[in-house]
Amino acid sequence: MPSATARLQTYLHESIPLVRHMQIVVDTYDEHGLSLSAPLAANINHKSTAFGGSLAALATLSCWGLLWLLLEPQADTHLVVRESHMHYLHPVTDTLVAVCPQPADTARQRFLDTLRRRGKARLELEAHILQQQTVCAKFSGQFVAYRDAAD
Amino acid sequence: MPSATARLQTYLHESIPLVRHMQIVVDTYDEHGLSLSAPLAANINHKSTAFGGSLAALATLSCWGLLWLLLEPQADTHLVVRESHMHYLHPVTDTLVAVCPQPADTARQRFLDTLRRRGKARLELEAHILQQQTVCAKFSGQFVAYRDAAD
Repeated sequence: MPSATARLQTYLHESIPLVRHMQIVVDTYDEHGLSLSAPLAANINHKSTAFGGSLAALATLSCWGLLWLLLEPQADTHLVVRESHMHYLHPVTDTLVAVCPQPADTARQRFLDTLRRRGKARLELEAHILQQQTVCAKFSGQFVAYRDAAD
Repeated sequence: MPSATARLQTYLHESIPLVRHMQIVVDTYDEHGLSLSAPLAANINHKSTAFGGSLAALATLSCWGLLWLLLEPQADTHLVVRESHMHYLHPVTDTLVAVCPQPADTARQRFLDTLRRRGKARLELEAHILQQQTVCAKFSGQFVAYRDAAD
């Protein structure tokens, strides 16, 4: 069976044409979280830095992808972003990197319990756009998972 | 001289590769605001609705583009998004449309006065993602303009 990162990358590339154009790579997934990257050339703007739209999409997908991996065994469960906030701090001048840390155990367990009991649950996640050790943008988003029956 | 919408579309398509992949069209620019659109097929997601990353990028660009048209005569002035918030209300199942209304006269005048006096100014803008008469997402963002000397 392919690794979790390979499964997510295949799913994203097959489902979302813009992910292919952004050339997004699923780099790592472990107890620290999920990390995605994308080359600057495919995501450049008029100032030769990373396009804000690409940074927002990459950050959103790092959180969405982390939840997808958490819920992957439940094929009847859908996952959407409800609300998001992006704070742009510094321009990105090299490879775009988005990291979504694992949520706290208690928040994750509450999310999974609520989803099982009610067929629908929300989770707040944060992500960072990083270049070297610098946080270039901060993302926070509210994601909703729901089962078919609860739709 | 090409129309304002044609100038903005050419600038966006030449500067940002992802705008070409999203197939963004600058539709109208008048006293009501700026309207951009993009076909669903190029911006589809795993659920056959519009990809959230495309919606956020289109909304951001509708505001950014409106300011670009406002400041176009000042070639030494740069324009960046500092902060943004996106609230997703309903899935978009057809052409993506983002509309950024013109800011109030007083806010626009204060923005232009501050930029002239200090070489730097901020403006809050809002945009809507529309399908028929329904608002499918609400965007708000803080944009900063600055002249080279103030950078």
